[in-house]
Amino acid sequence: MAGSTFGNLFRITTWGESHGPALGVVIDGCPAGLALEEADIQRYLDRRRPGQSKITTSRSEADQVEILSGVFEGRSTGTPVSLLVRNTAQISRDYSEIASCYRPGHADYTFDRKYGFRDYRGGGRSSGRETIGRVAAGAIACKILKRLGIEVCAYTRSIGPIAMDPARFEADAVLKTRTAMPDREADAQAVAYLEEAIKRLDSVGGVMECRVSGVPAGIGDPVFCKLDALLAQAAMSIGAVKAVEIGDGTSVSARYGSENNDPFRMEQDRVVKATNHAGGILGGISDGSDILVRAHVKPTPSIYAPQQTVDNSGHEIDIQIKGRHDPIIVPRAVVVLECMTAITLLDAMMTNLCCRMDSLETFYRASGFSEV
Amino acid sequence: MAGSTFGNLFRITTWGESHGPALGVVIDGCPAGLALEEADIQRYLDRRRPGQSKITTSRSEADQVEILSGVFEGRSTGTPVSLLVRNTAQISRDYSEIASCYRPGHADYTFDRKYGFRDYRGGGRSSGRETIGRVAAGAIACKILKRLGIEVCAYTRSIGPIAMDPARFEADAVLKTRTAMPDREADAQAVAYLEEAIKRLDSVGGVMECRVSGVPAGIGDPVFCKLDALLAQAAMSIGAVKAVEIGDGTSVSARYGSENNDPFRMEQDRVVKATNHAGGILGGISDGSDILVRAHVKPTPSIYAPQQTVDNSGHEIDIQIKGRHDPIIVPRAVVVLECMTAITLLDAMMTNLCCRMDSLETFYRASGFSEV
Amino acid sequence: MAGSTFGNLFRITTWGESHGPALGVVIDGCPAGLALEEADIQRYLDRRRPGQSKITTSRSEADQVEILSGVFEGRSTGTPVSLLVRNTAQISRDYSEIASCYRPGHADYTFDRKYGFRDYRGGGRSSGRETIGRVAAGAIACKILKRLGIEVCAYTRSIGPIAMDPARFEADAVLKTRTAMPDREADAQAVAYLEEAIKRLDSVGGVMECRVSGVPAGIGDPVFCKLDALLAQAAMSIGAVKAVEIGDGTSVSARYGSENNDPFRMEQDRVVKATNHAGGILGGISDGSDILVRAHVKPTPSIYAPQQTVDNSGHEIDIQIKGRHDPIIVPRAVVVLECMTAITLLDAMMTNLCCRMDSLETFYRASGFSEV
Amino acid sequence: MAGSTFGNLFRITTWGESHGPALGVVIDGCPAGLALEEADIQRYLDRRRPGQSKITTSRSEADQVEILSGVFEGRSTGTPVSLLVRNTAQISRDYSEIASCYRPGHADYTFDRKYGFRDYRGGGRSSGRETIGRVAAGAIACKILKRLGIEVCAYTRSIGPIAMDPARFEADAVLKTRTAMPDREADAQAVAYLEEAIKRLDSVGGVMECRVSGVPAGIGDPVFCKLDALLAQAAMSIGAVKAVEIGDGTSVSARYGSENNDPFRMEQDRVVKATNHAGGILGGISDGSDILVRAHVKPTPSIYAPQQTVDNSGHEIDIQIKGRHDPIIVPRAVVVLECMTAITLLDAMMTNLCCRMDSLETFYRASGFSEV
Repeated sequence: MAGSTFGNLFRITTWGESHGPALGVVIDGCPAGLALEEADIQRYLDRRRPGQSKITTSRSEADQVEILSGVFEGRSTGTPVSLLVRNTAQISRDYSEIASCYRPGHADYTFDRKYGFRDYRGGGRSSGRETIGRVAAGAIACKILKRLGIEVCAYTRSIGPIAMDPARFEADAVLKTRTAMPDREADAQAVAYLEEAIKRLDSVGGVMECRVSGVPAGIGDPVFCKLDALLAQAAMSIGAVKAVEIGDGTSVSARYGSENNDPFRMEQDRVVKATNHAGGILGGISDGSDILVRAHVKPTPSIYAPQQTVDNSGHEIDIQIKGRHDPIIVPRAVVVLECMTAITLLDAMMTNLCCRMDSLETFYRASGFSEV
Repeated sequence: MAGSTFGNLFRITTWGESHGPALGVVIDGCPAGLALEEADIQRYLDRRRPGQSKITTSRSEADQVEILSGVFEGRSTGTPVSLLVRNTAQISRDYSEIASCYRPGHADYTFDRKYGFRDYRGGGRSSGRETIGRVAAGAIACKILKRLGIEVCAYTRSIGPIAMDPARFEADAVLKTRTAMPDREADAQAVAYLEEAIKRLDSVGGVMECRVSGVPAGIGDPVFCKLDALLAQAAMSIGAVKAVEIGDGTSVSARYGSENNDPFRMEQDRVVKATNHAGGILGGISDGSDILVRAHVKPTPSIYAPQQTVDNSGHEIDIQIKGRHDPIIVPRAVVVLECMTAITLLDAMMTNLCCRMDSLETFYRASGFSEV
Repeated sequence: MAGSTFGNLFRITTWGESHGPALGVVIDGCPAGLALEEADIQRYLDRRRPGQSKITTSRSEADQVEILSGVFEGRSTGTPVSLLVRNTAQISRDYSEIASCYRPGHADYTFDRKYGFRDYRGGGRSSGRETIGRVAAGAIACKILKRLGIEVCAYTRSIGPIAMDPARFEADAVLKTRTAMPDREADAQAVAYLEEAIKRLDSVGGVMECRVSGVPAGIGDPVFCKLDALLAQAAMSIGAVKAVEIGDGTSVSARYGSENNDPFRMEQDRVVKATNHAGGILGGISDGSDILVRAHVKPTPSIYAPQQTVDNSGHEIDIQIKGRHDPIIVPRAVVVLECMTAITLLDAMMTNLCCRMDSLETFYRASGFSEV
Repeated sequence: MAGSTFGNLFRITTWGESHGPALGVVIDGCPAGLALEEADIQRYLDRRRPGQSKITTSRSEADQVEILSGVFEGRSTGTPVSLLVRNTAQISRDYSEIASCYRPGHADYTFDRKYGFRDYRGGGRSSGRETIGRVAAGAIACKILKRLGIEVCAYTRSIGPIAMDPARFEADAVLKTRTAMPDREADAQAVAYLEEAIKRLDSVGGVMECRVSGVPAGIGDPVFCKLDALLAQAAMSIGAVKAVEIGDGTSVSARYGSENNDPFRMEQDRVVKATNHAGGILGGISDGSDILVRAHVKPTPSIYAPQQTVDNSGHEIDIQIKGRHDPIIVPRAVVVLECMTAITLLDAMMTNLCCRMDSLETFYRASGFSEV
């Protein structure tokens, strides 16, 4: 349990460093019989790929995925799916400065304290490139969820003080704007804001949001594995996320119960909620409304402006971080949130299959597994 | 994996319903040799005990804990510690109304969809009484952490719009004010605010905060088991929590990197941070500063005012919830946040023991485990 | 992960010591909707109850089970089922001798080395009474398996050199003979053999066997969680078991492939095997034939005859073990093997529900979980 | 939890099929600071490499390992170590016969029942090539254990009826004889026996044994995670193993307690056992003596002689298996048993670090992790 495994039945294990030979993921528990090819995964990796516009890092990586196992004649076999992405654009340069100094806001110091030393090239395991494995696995989770009638969609909600306007929401825009904002007007403002920050050698933060529609009611477990608790772990595990909200999130703490409760009502023989302050989860279990997760992302800690810090010999020094880095993480992290949400939900749905005697009996008596 | 187990090496499993015979917890992995008696645990249970003032439920339970295993001659033996609390104040009454209707904001509907039926008496497993097991286990975690020089302290930060003033912080007040606010002036205002809400048959929300001091740098794992990710799961798993923040939390998303980065500097041969926007965690690993977790709690969904809802036959109905319930959850939930934080941190510290070859070698060569 | 939890989806956590106030188990993941009452569990506990004949310990315990949670109006609710058995016949006596000495064949020395000290009364956690929790949980697993058309039946195969004769197998006899042998003639011989050993202040070993019929083909996972690998863990985890065999077990190593392979053939549109050397498992997955597990049990280490050993101060001493103990463990352990086998199989069957896309889709599209 | 992950703190996840592009393993939890290079791992892979003599399959694979992550400047970093071995000698041929038929003794039928279809080329995931990941990970575990003073050594104990003679034991011979027997005389006999079986188009079984020396007393957990229970799972999870013994194993069931108990005695201030019937484990915890595990392996199910079976359309057919396969599995599986034993033991030793308050306190107060 050293932290690189997530999920129970749909279980992923990621590996790889920024400047090592490759990164990847093993998915153990992908159900058998899913049509799967590299293009299914590449589509998602391309959304987090660097070097796509001037508001992302200039490091240019193709991030081509290779399926190494678990797929036969175009379908998953039920055995582990191993996915590999080679690093190709590591720049060989002098890392001696970064090797010995602790960059503010980064994990350099904490890795050294934990492990005694670290792979300092490009941040090593704590680099954003670590998320390649998450996205590759999440692409598969998303494909399975789609087959179950569920759509997972994440986007940029705000960048610095510039927020999208829900009234201008265009789902298509998420994949087309440079900021991954679903609102072209806000996108334009945000780009201007970013350019200004870049000029000042600074970086900015933002908020990403993920909406899941089509989730049946009844998914999730009480107590510690509440669906919202696992979604919070999933979202907070993405580097630079410092707060997670479900539904109306932080707003609820200043409300009265009469304002915040969502009344149930009937809609064509279905139980629905008149409002959705809860964000689709009650008592840790999905209630059939859209699930809404929001994650607050800190400004990229790497900035070109000079900063005060210390080195690993205990000297106070000034550093000016060179190299390639994003002035904002959010636009490329949006797909990571989407993928982590999908993985978490799919795992909960798989767990749910055995929570009732009647479904267990139906399955074993009717599915052809048993002739008894 | 039905959700009632938390932790890996310090692993707790809770059980019990609001109106069943008893509730409890099994702690597997409590290190051997800890002085432990029922009073150590009772002290924490008393902080979440109901019926203590007019701003809590009138259900009066002694919540006396009994140690059933794992302790011998006053010390933990290393084998499972089983703790039991009998329910004594269940009121026998007619539950037929609640049995068939879905209370807004509660888990009635979602439990029915998941399990097919539910123990509706007092909310069953989704009742706040479920947290008895967490607090009993957390009392032990806190005692161990204290032995390691670590203090975990949670308190009420705000109730509705009434927030504590950090300038008036008094640690002692947490255990003495009715609101668990560490600021007697804010407490008085909050109580007035609450009384007003009670009069209007309404309920209110609030924010709780937990500060951990004395944590060494280097605790936590990268990627999915980041210390903040596990703290987020821990906090979000507490009923009614809808948002979790680490350090400056939601504020970071509107900042520039130059504002948000905490510069490192030296203080008497120790690396410290000049500020602590990060809340004591960088890259998922503790950095030696205080850890700060904040949880936003929704208003109690049970209110005396009439509400619209549906019953389990699909009829739209009006309900008016009777019975005993808290107008606000926060003051009694503060100790739950403290306990969940302690359990999460202790588990991470135990995991950390084997992350380096040198510590593994030192242990097995020097500890008397090996004579080789 | 301190060892007292077993299973993933049907997960049990046991606790309790020989001379503590009580022992018990928490079952997390029991499917909702199972008719369940204390009598279902008591029936199994009675089979391992001490004091029933002169070939078992004279300690007489009622071992009455109490259901503390997870059952409402006679049915499991899907939340944790907590089961409690109070110890009532602890004899207060002087344990000073056993406290300081290391009994040969027992865990006294190893517990002291691991934990630094131990609860020495009656063996503490390493006592056979530890299996109460396993049997209580296993009773539930067996009841569920029966609903799925599966029978689990364990019995004594041999005691010392006295083996049952398969030609004389009577299923009823298992519950009626003192040795739990399904062969009355062998039972009589075994009792005579045991009486002889008791006279000589000695103890004896034996072999237990468990047969599972009605298991559908396709249960189990490849690689590390092969069904036989988990059954081996389950059986070997029972105190005093020193060898586990599946199907023909140790015999296979001296055979030719042409002898050992089980030919497949058709029987009324079903694939069956002409023989069952494999014991119902191929490649770690059930093949539809009966599953056969065998466990070899060492003689009870507690004997009345004098033995050489050392004490915890490093002195070589002679001891003569007093107190109450079984001259053979097997007859009372048979139900433990039955229960561990049932728990292992049920957990594997629950896991299996999500191994195919088609079953996942059928479930979520047809079960009423989703209206999409 | 689809079965390809093993271990808790030293956790391995294997992947890959016989005829896919590659096989490999991810090790999460390898302690930081271990000197590690590909040669360390290659040495172990070479011991299970095919095509080395006429008594192994003629498939010739280099099985060259590549380290893809987790190692920096020659030392492990504490982050996941990903190891890759490309398949290079897959022969493109017509698999249509094997695709539709169920070979006796193989997992063809059970995979089809579980997953609905299978990768039939060379057995897919159920091929012996699956063990490449185990051996690669085990090489690292062995290297760590050596640093802790522990030696793990497996060898062939018998092949068919030909057993090694302990009096002729030569440790060196294990790596030099074709059978991996540590007795050159028995090796010669076994080879003759094998050649005879090959001529008759048949296969044979055998027994492998693993001895671990230098293990400190006190390793392992009571109840379900007993060291012997986990070793049994580990050994039984190796394809074709049908029985596992610890210490004297099956012999103990016919003994008296007075014969089977190992008396403790003192040897230069150390507690030792006069005999070691127990195989180094008492109550699931190591006792300081050598640990002894024995695994019985069935004859290779693939034989060239004709066999009766059925196809996946339910027709009874005769098959004659072509292709390349080993007439005996044991000589190449010995290193797999060695590796699985090492992984299991190392994981238990890492878990053990936190079982006492005093070691927890020592570590955090003395190690430089805390300045408090």
